[in-house]
Amino acid sequence: MDHERWMGEALALADEAAGAGEVPVGCVIVRGEQIVGRGRNRREEDRSALAHAEILAIREACTFLKDWRLSDCGLYVTLEPCPMCAGAILNARLKWVCYGARDEKTGSCGSVLNLFEENYGYRPALYGGVLEEDCLARLRDFFRDLRRQ
Amino acid sequence: MDHERWMGEALALADEAAGAGEVPVGCVIVRGEQIVGRGRNRREEDRSALAHAEILAIREACTFLKDWRLSDCGLYVTLEPCPMCAGAILNARLKWVCYGARDEKTGSCGSVLNLFEENYGYRPALYGGVLEEDCLARLRDFFRDLRRQ
Repeated sequence: MDHERWMGEALALADEAAGAGEVPVGCVIVRGEQIVGRGRNRREEDRSALAHAEILAIREACTFLKDWRLSDCGLYVTLEPCPMCAGAILNARLKWVCYGARDEKTGSCGSVLNLFEENYGYRPALYGGVLEEDCLARLRDFFRDLRRQ
Repeated sequence: MDHERWMGEALALADEAAGAGEVPVGCVIVRGEQIVGRGRNRREEDRSALAHAEILAIREACTFLKDWRLSDCGLYVTLEPCPMCAGAILNARLKWVCYGARDEKTGSCGSVLNLFEENYGYRPALYGGVLEEDCLARLRDFFRDLRRQ
């Protein structure tokens, strides 16, 4: 699996979020050699607590594959998932998860806690720190520009 | 706050779910004396891992109130929230959560763990066991009928 290639696709979606004034987080879901779901943060635009990149990508993948189970798919996201998104990953039975930057405040794949190590009866494979520097740079630049405004 | 009254409204939505062949879980979100969001389990119909009662109710409330923050609202759900839904409750900054029946398998407000006691920087008030027997009876009847079929 070429984790960096797919994380690059997630980064392109993070850039799209930043261009729309949203915290730059992007996500793709991959099955084999195909992207089956894409999402990027839309919380402010959609005025919705649910509009995280991972949720939108999972919704698109479930619609595309006509199944709530994504058990032969992997998820790539530029920022460590929050508890809602980590829980959605468990519910959708994703096979593996790659994230870029850690999120010390709400990250739930190792930072605040690791939901994938709890007793939910399902554990996706987990890879952290993929293209971490690129993912972090997007967030750093976004918040620097925000402070300047 | 009349918790049993609002849980009764959530139970009516659980019955609607059962009628549609879904595991009977219902949810309402209340602000003052008004219901601002309703949801019931639609996982099979929508073929979506995200189509839990709480997620659909939070989406409706965010749309209705035009805000991702639901900080003056309370949520009533017939079954203890899973990690995805407990995380969505944190993201939406709901003021309080009432649930009916415990969920030993994925419940994340005290059963598998309690996400509201972790270090996420936000803690809604939590009331468990509201109309617990009625909520449990719905689930028991649903799974009994399913086994008979």
